[in-house]
Amino acid sequence: MSKQVGIIMGSKSDLPIMSEAAKALEELGVQYELTIVSAHRTPRRMIDYAESARQRGIKVIIAGAGGAAHLPGMVASLTSLPVIGVPIKSSNSIDGWDSILSILQMPAGIPVATVALNGAKNAGILAASMVGAYDAKVAENMENFKKELREKVEETARDVELKGWKDTLDD
Amino acid sequence: MSKQVGIIMGSKSDLPIMSEAAKALEELGVQYELTIVSAHRTPRRMIDYAESARQRGIKVIIAGAGGAAHLPGMVASLTSLPVIGVPIKSSNSIDGWDSILSILQMPAGIPVATVALNGAKNAGILAASMVGAYDAKVAENMENFKKELREKVEETARDVELKGWKDTLDD
Amino acid sequence: MSKQVGIIMGSKSDLPIMSEAAKALEELGVQYELTIVSAHRTPRRMIDYAESARQRGIKVIIAGAGGAAHLPGMVASLTSLPVIGVPIKSSNSIDGWDSILSILQMPAGIPVATVALNGAKNAGILAASMVGAYDAKVAENMENFKKELREKVEETARDVELKGWKDTLDD
Amino acid sequence: MSKQVGIIMGSKSDLPIMSEAAKALEELGVQYELTIVSAHRTPRRMIDYAESARQRGIKVIIAGAGGAAHLPGMVASLTSLPVIGVPIKSSNSIDGWDSILSILQMPAGIPVATVALNGAKNAGILAASMVGAYDAKVAENMENFKKELREKVEETARDVELKGWKDTLDD
Amino acid sequence: MSKQVGIIMGSKSDLPIMSEAAKALEELGVQYELTIVSAHRTPRRMIDYAESARQRGIKVIIAGAGGAAHLPGMVASLTSLPVIGVPIKSSNSIDGWDSILSILQMPAGIPVATVALNGAKNAGILAASMVGAYDAKVAENMENFKKELREKVEETARDVELKGWKDTLDD
Amino acid sequence: MSKQVGIIMGSKSDLPIMSEAAKALEELGVQYELTIVSAHRTPRRMIDYAESARQRGIKVIIAGAGGAAHLPGMVASLTSLPVIGVPIKSSNSIDGWDSILSILQMPAGIPVATVALNGAKNAGILAASMVGAYDAKVAENMENFKKELREKVEETARDVELKGWKDTLDD
Amino acid sequence: MSKQVGIIMGSKSDLPIMSEAAKALEELGVQYELTIVSAHRTPRRMIDYAESARQRGIKVIIAGAGGAAHLPGMVASLTSLPVIGVPIKSSNSIDGWDSILSILQMPAGIPVATVALNGAKNAGILAASMVGAYDAKVAENMENFKKELREKVEETARDVELKGWKDTLDD
Amino acid sequence: MSKQVGIIMGSKSDLPIMSEAAKALEELGVQYELTIVSAHRTPRRMIDYAESARQRGIKVIIAGAGGAAHLPGMVASLTSLPVIGVPIKSSNSIDGWDSILSILQMPAGIPVATVALNGAKNAGILAASMVGAYDAKVAENMENFKKELREKVEETARDVELKGWKDTLDD
Repeated sequence: MSKQVGIIMGSKSDLPIMSEAAKALEELGVQYELTIVSAHRTPRRMIDYAESARQRGIKVIIAGAGGAAHLPGMVASLTSLPVIGVPIKSSNSIDGWDSILSILQMPAGIPVATVALNGAKNAGILAASMVGAYDAKVAENMENFKKELREKVEETARDVELKGWKDTLDD
Repeated sequence: MSKQVGIIMGSKSDLPIMSEAAKALEELGVQYELTIVSAHRTPRRMIDYAESARQRGIKVIIAGAGGAAHLPGMVASLTSLPVIGVPIKSSNSIDGWDSILSILQMPAGIPVATVALNGAKNAGILAASMVGAYDAKVAENMENFKKELREKVEETARDVELKGWKDTLDD
Repeated sequence: MSKQVGIIMGSKSDLPIMSEAAKALEELGVQYELTIVSAHRTPRRMIDYAESARQRGIKVIIAGAGGAAHLPGMVASLTSLPVIGVPIKSSNSIDGWDSILSILQMPAGIPVATVALNGAKNAGILAASMVGAYDAKVAENMENFKKELREKVEETARDVELKGWKDTLDD
Repeated sequence: MSKQVGIIMGSKSDLPIMSEAAKALEELGVQYELTIVSAHRTPRRMIDYAESARQRGIKVIIAGAGGAAHLPGMVASLTSLPVIGVPIKSSNSIDGWDSILSILQMPAGIPVATVALNGAKNAGILAASMVGAYDAKVAENMENFKKELREKVEETARDVELKGWKDTLDD
Repeated sequence: MSKQVGIIMGSKSDLPIMSEAAKALEELGVQYELTIVSAHRTPRRMIDYAESARQRGIKVIIAGAGGAAHLPGMVASLTSLPVIGVPIKSSNSIDGWDSILSILQMPAGIPVATVALNGAKNAGILAASMVGAYDAKVAENMENFKKELREKVEETARDVELKGWKDTLDD
Repeated sequence: MSKQVGIIMGSKSDLPIMSEAAKALEELGVQYELTIVSAHRTPRRMIDYAESARQRGIKVIIAGAGGAAHLPGMVASLTSLPVIGVPIKSSNSIDGWDSILSILQMPAGIPVATVALNGAKNAGILAASMVGAYDAKVAENMENFKKELREKVEETARDVELKGWKDTLDD
Repeated sequence: MSKQVGIIMGSKSDLPIMSEAAKALEELGVQYELTIVSAHRTPRRMIDYAESARQRGIKVIIAGAGGAAHLPGMVASLTSLPVIGVPIKSSNSIDGWDSILSILQMPAGIPVATVALNGAKNAGILAASMVGAYDAKVAENMENFKKELREKVEETARDVELKGWKDTLDD
Repeated sequence: MSKQVGIIMGSKSDLPIMSEAAKALEELGVQYELTIVSAHRTPRRMIDYAESARQRGIKVIIAGAGGAAHLPGMVASLTSLPVIGVPIKSSNSIDGWDSILSILQMPAGIPVATVALNGAKNAGILAASMVGAYDAKVAENMENFKKELREKVEETARDVELKGWKDTLDD
């Protein structure tokens, strides 16, 4: 089966964050590819990646970047596929505001689907939901995932109610 | 043909902004529905809307809200479809920061695809790109739309180069 | 005696902060209950909790949440009891701004009584003051609590004046 | 019947905003008093007001102020009644951030129930909900108020669905 | 004489701001060219522009853009010439913070010389100072320009001191 | 009697704001001088002004500036007199944050007494209070000024209480 | 000799910061007193302190506080002496913004001379400069202090130039 | 060969950051000098440095400073050479915002080429690009530097693709 999601990031140092997207996709049964593409250091590689994505069967691109984060927006300008942007709070970032604003505030015509700061896990889930809108198996996985989220909270709630908050804190 | 995109907003006063999403979808040949759903004033209506969307054939939901904007995130918690959030700079908003942060910063597990402040047009285009990933006709429309964007800039550039910036400013 | 205050939070990880509200209520002689309710992971549980609170004798609800914090506002939309919101600076938060703004900036009609970032202790005191407005015993406890605050400062002041700031710093 | 809510503000120029609290209380059937008290210009008047409020039968105080807004916090330090703070975006304010932070970020021990910027209407509703927790008639008014909010949204939704968004915008 | 400075911007709507750079260069005797190049709408045109600039004799590029402003940084990634970035407070910008941060916060290796928000005039002067570091005639113009700035302030000061501030205000 | 306060500003366009300092000083009976001095356009004039101030009998300097506001801090570096800085929200300012931070955040060793954004009136009053600490006549004027502030609020309060807020609003 | 400067702070936990003001005053030969006064916990003590300061011979008050910092402004409302406010970045502060804004943004009529975040040393120097405007010995100390600052930089500069930056870094 | 770039900073504590500019210039084959110059502690030394720079053959000045950072702007006011400003996130800075804004937001007429927070390496590269616009050898070094940046990313990308992200993370 061909890859449905492409995950890219500007530098290997983004991998600890961005791998959360890969894990989420694996958990939700979505095929993906992952590589390094830099808007500022490898502009031509970025163009090749973005322009060939659709032909290679990719349905969504997830792009993570920090600081003045141009990768998600530039990729979005080079493909008609949906692009999910992950703002990364890198060491050279001002509390993440620079990454968020340079991904979120795209001009009319070129949207980027922005998720929370360092929200790579959510980027994976969001990509799966896009695939799941057309793929019944992935949709079922999404529903199960949401059910598990719910059950985990319910279980914790029962625990806290039973043991009381003092004993729970002491655990 | 059934509706593929659902557009909702918390109040009629959001319509001047949110109608830009509808216009973009029309231009890109995507069927949509549009209505008013408030997280805070009609919580049960919101639940019914979100939980029935997939069965009604909807592929993506676009939700716009201002201030402490809970509609996009709450809808995302109630469906496994992708949800696009449009932060709106309403009169009771603090320069839009409240809307942006309360839509963007969703917890792990429940993503919202956030677009720029008042970026309803981009929400429409983003929804179309999600549909276009699976629908060849919409994909073609997307490509043409991007081509037109490009040509318009090129034409303007030729104009400015020919006439010079002084005459262009005087127009 | 029935519980007068309900304390809820989105996740067990909020307990170290939110338990300060419980401690304050114990100190001020107000009965309370405490459990886990997530707006995004258990929306139906949240509705049940909020809609049954008044019948169970609850007079005030304290709700804590981080990031895009929707729990306090959504609970406020589902009950006519006063709701106190505690913005939590969780790990996925942008210095707490997201939690503050998504709790504070509620639209007209659905107020949330917001306290300081991580201000769960103050949420407990505030809840006690609401109860104390109608309950003479709690009011008396409130007055004693304020008196102790004052006396502790006065004692410290005497100390510093007596020993001088250099010796105080060396303690 | 004695007054249950006291509304104060630092200057007559805050009245256009703060009168929204009075209107909300009238609509919800709660008795109130309203006057001008300035923390910085009439500190002794502020002390007298705050310290006598409980004896006069007041159950909640609503205090509005702009800029470095000290009135709500200082009043809270002088009474054991709950105090609701309304940050006002006055002309000398920096987009309201100063008012919000100097009301919200009270130290442990002295809470202020902060509402949205210029959120005087919500301050009135919040005060009514505190009264309504103990007063069946006001509680009923609160429930009716919430029902009307809901019905108004449902009606608007029906309208937009029937007429379509284009005709609604043209109205 | 060949052009020494290239001025580009993403859209014709940036011209009222960006023309200030052109005016400053004319005043300081530096040859320039000016055209429209969009990072997001005409990525290939941007590459051609940036990669050919040095061969055409250009010494500095001035690039203006608003919102998620990627043009200056992307051009900087495509040339080894100095690039001056002008953040523009466009209508879709959040008080200019997005433009500033997405131009200023470039990653190590790819600097952009950022000037103040809407600071196109300063971009022109800065470009002239770079040329003037190697061109005696332009350096002389720069010195004269600075002298005029100084003399204008001195003249105003004399005026205010002579007439007094009251009469100056009444003018 | 010699001038006790020197008021300076970077440009004539700051005069409408800065004249409020002059008016306050006149009202409080303090002699002052007022002129234009620019840190960036007339650095030598600034040095002469700052270094001669003490000899001329000046006791306090008030310096107003907008944007990257260097005048107050540079003057403080050139004199041992107290310097009051007035951040001005000029047209090229980012909501005043730039002026505030570049005046307030002086390094250890070189303080500037910063007042509120556009707070020239308060700068005048603050200067008068410094003079009044040593001059009994000015101290008396200060006390009277504070008394008038108090009486004006008390009078307004009586008015609002008598007429009610509805009639007051209709005035 | 009587005390010329009064240093107060809301809590003993502010002492590590605020003692820097005391040290600076000692170094500059100015007599001071230091104690704990809390606006919110000991309002009456604050009033007594502020209202008696002038009679006791105090010329300037330095007040430090964190979070919603009301002490400097309230003291300023209760005395006609100059009040210097030190915003403190306490543990419950939002990066210090709350302290800064609630001290800086005082309404017209009641100024506070605000220094940098945690800038207690500068508060001491500023107080000394106010005293030094009228006291020749303190003025001389100020001049010497400034001279030492200058000489230390000049010495460091010579060092770096001689040894080169690489050896300086290795020290 | 004479020095082409002058690097200055306000204090020795800025050296760990600012030495990155020196390293970048060495790598790119550009001669430089480096010393300590403080706007606030050695204003006359700053004037001498700035006014003599051009005569000594300097083509660009790099100035780094933190907090209320006046050095870059003041130097720019004293020379017609281009000045690059490096905002430094020093210990007394508010997350760097103060340094950024007091360097970036220079008034019309006196530009500073601002780079990212702590972006001294980029300041060095930017200075080299200005020299390289007129010096073929430096231009060639710039091109090689950019090529190496590209090749390093491409190599990393090959690695990650070959080994997979899991093994890369484990390295």
